[in-house]
Amino acid sequence: MSEPNEYAVVPPDEQVRRAAVARQAQLTKPGGALGRLEELGIWLAACQGQCPPKPFARPRIVVFAGDHGIAQHGVSAYPPEVTAQMVTNFLTGGAAINVLAQVAGATVRVADLSVAADTPEPVAQHKVRRSSGSIDREDALTEDEVTAAIAAGRAIADEEIDSGADLLVAGDMGIGNTTPAAVLIAALTGAEPVAVVGRGTGIDDEGWMRKATAIRDGLRRARAVAADPVALLRTAGGADIAAMAAFLARAAVRRTPVVLDGLVSGAAALVAEELAPGAKAWWVAGHRSVEPAHTLVLDQLDLTPLLELDMRLGEGTGATAAIPLLSMAVRVLAEMATFDDAGVSGPDVPLPAP
Amino acid sequence: MSEPNEYAVVPPDEQVRRAAVARQAQLTKPGGALGRLEELGIWLAACQGQCPPKPFARPRIVVFAGDHGIAQHGVSAYPPEVTAQMVTNFLTGGAAINVLAQVAGATVRVADLSVAADTPEPVAQHKVRRSSGSIDREDALTEDEVTAAIAAGRAIADEEIDSGADLLVAGDMGIGNTTPAAVLIAALTGAEPVAVVGRGTGIDDEGWMRKATAIRDGLRRARAVAADPVALLRTAGGADIAAMAAFLARAAVRRTPVVLDGLVSGAAALVAEELAPGAKAWWVAGHRSVEPAHTLVLDQLDLTPLLELDMRLGEGTGATAAIPLLSMAVRVLAEMATFDDAGVSGPDVPLPAP
Repeated sequence: MSEPNEYAVVPPDEQVRRAAVARQAQLTKPGGALGRLEELGIWLAACQGQCPPKPFARPRIVVFAGDHGIAQHGVSAYPPEVTAQMVTNFLTGGAAINVLAQVAGATVRVADLSVAADTPEPVAQHKVRRSSGSIDREDALTEDEVTAAIAAGRAIADEEIDSGADLLVAGDMGIGNTTPAAVLIAALTGAEPVAVVGRGTGIDDEGWMRKATAIRDGLRRARAVAADPVALLRTAGGADIAAMAAFLARAAVRRTPVVLDGLVSGAAALVAEELAPGAKAWWVAGHRSVEPAHTLVLDQLDLTPLLELDMRLGEGTGATAAIPLLSMAVRVLAEMATFDDAGVSGPDVPLPAP
Repeated sequence: MSEPNEYAVVPPDEQVRRAAVARQAQLTKPGGALGRLEELGIWLAACQGQCPPKPFARPRIVVFAGDHGIAQHGVSAYPPEVTAQMVTNFLTGGAAINVLAQVAGATVRVADLSVAADTPEPVAQHKVRRSSGSIDREDALTEDEVTAAIAAGRAIADEEIDSGADLLVAGDMGIGNTTPAAVLIAALTGAEPVAVVGRGTGIDDEGWMRKATAIRDGLRRARAVAADPVALLRTAGGADIAAMAAFLARAAVRRTPVVLDGLVSGAAALVAEELAPGAKAWWVAGHRSVEPAHTLVLDQLDLTPLLELDMRLGEGTGATAAIPLLSMAVRVLAEMATFDDAGVSGPDVPLPAP
């Protein structure tokens, strides 16, 4: 007997999807008049395997925190100690993701995979190492470390889903993390280095040059292993990004919908789709980041973002800003009256299905 | 002594706006990294006249319901009795706007200005007449009726603001109402009839031709009075749209921010800006509707919509879908930690202000 494939993805339920399409046409609105909210509701019903779908009970954001050796080389506008300081800020509720999550009805977990400082339990429960290697000149992780990081991401997804999470976001925190993210995206899309260099937290022109050089050097090392997603994470990712990729793949295996965030989440998603082909059927793009490489991710995954608000913060903020739209989409299918229920006359002429 | 101008608009507070710009730069995120959420927060602080701004206490949606004589001429996919049926649906909570409002933390009021059927008190409290005239061949309203409709819209705004509403949406319900809306937009933007004809609730090609003819005939009558916003509402609007325009103008006079919805809300907004020049400084565009004439409105008012989700329902749904983004924007300024508070290091290099 062969091992079952731990990355086998089943698509959202097609029969339920059809039932949701039919239900949309019975609700008291012209067919298709809620546009993408209708499509979202249909997708979420198919993900849940039930129509009408249930309002979310536990939307959950996991912020994957990690430092990156490359940050020592001036690729960010902020000093590396900010990663650990921001972990504390998440825990005391002062960061942007905390505020956005509250409005979205979601809760936030922080997971330290590779912060270059001590963090408290249970944040450090899945910690792999302190910082990841400087990918312009060395591997981000050893073989054992990449295995541990992938196991951590998978375990975090399992913990969250087993605790009732029914909508997931993978956020990021790590000074310098847009550099490995850009390398992974270039390696998996075939883009040139210059096409993936963004301003990150807001570097100046000299910083941009340093970042472009780091990405070029990292990409030279990454391209050699781009066909093997685990080797790619080891060479050019980092413990945080490896765990995110495994988390996204595992969410799809566990039939749990995910709202993707921006650049770092997107890089992890590209790798996750390599690990678990078909995983993207379980994802919606929350927003389009200002970072140029994020558009390459959206194009490659064929995802149209819900929001385009010129955001570039990470932490899961762009995904979380979109969660209320998903809540609306589900509740339209779950709670709106049908033409029959409400005694409202239908259209004079048949309308096209949404 | 001269009468004070009842439509005098004071812009949002410039000093508070500057304080909000400065506060954004102190919060624990790279400057500008929340993109339009930062701009929204700054604008809302200026509207409230205080920084940090307060989370919304009472976001309020008013659905202006009215029938239109033109609906007798086959310009909609739905029969006219749907207007009254939908009023009942709003009151029992089964419509899309009810569901979206719940997620957005807003409440819904329905105001019957000109429904062609009896509706219960207090919905009918400000009723002007049953249906408005068929604008292809007669005025929508008499002189007295347009005066009453404008007074009604103003009174509704006052009632809501005096009851504590701190964010307003003007929604619409009325079979056939996209036809007068399109005429008003063409009259105020100089667009040709064919550029403003949309599918509304979803008409077929023959219905589209009938609608185009009705708009052409209505526009011929409207253009003659386009320089006078009250005459324009009387000739080519309707009691519902006249009340919406006065409501939007009055909200600006009363320094209360508004989220604009789609086509009908947009037509009323164009007229409101004529009534009360500068009112648009108190508005944000919630979304871009599929209706082609709505883009003309956004261009004329120089507003960039928050959402582009291919919605075209009305009722205030496109505006309400955006309310959570406004809530997030306010709460970022009100609740996020500053770099000093959180002990987070600032950037190595000075960042441009958002």
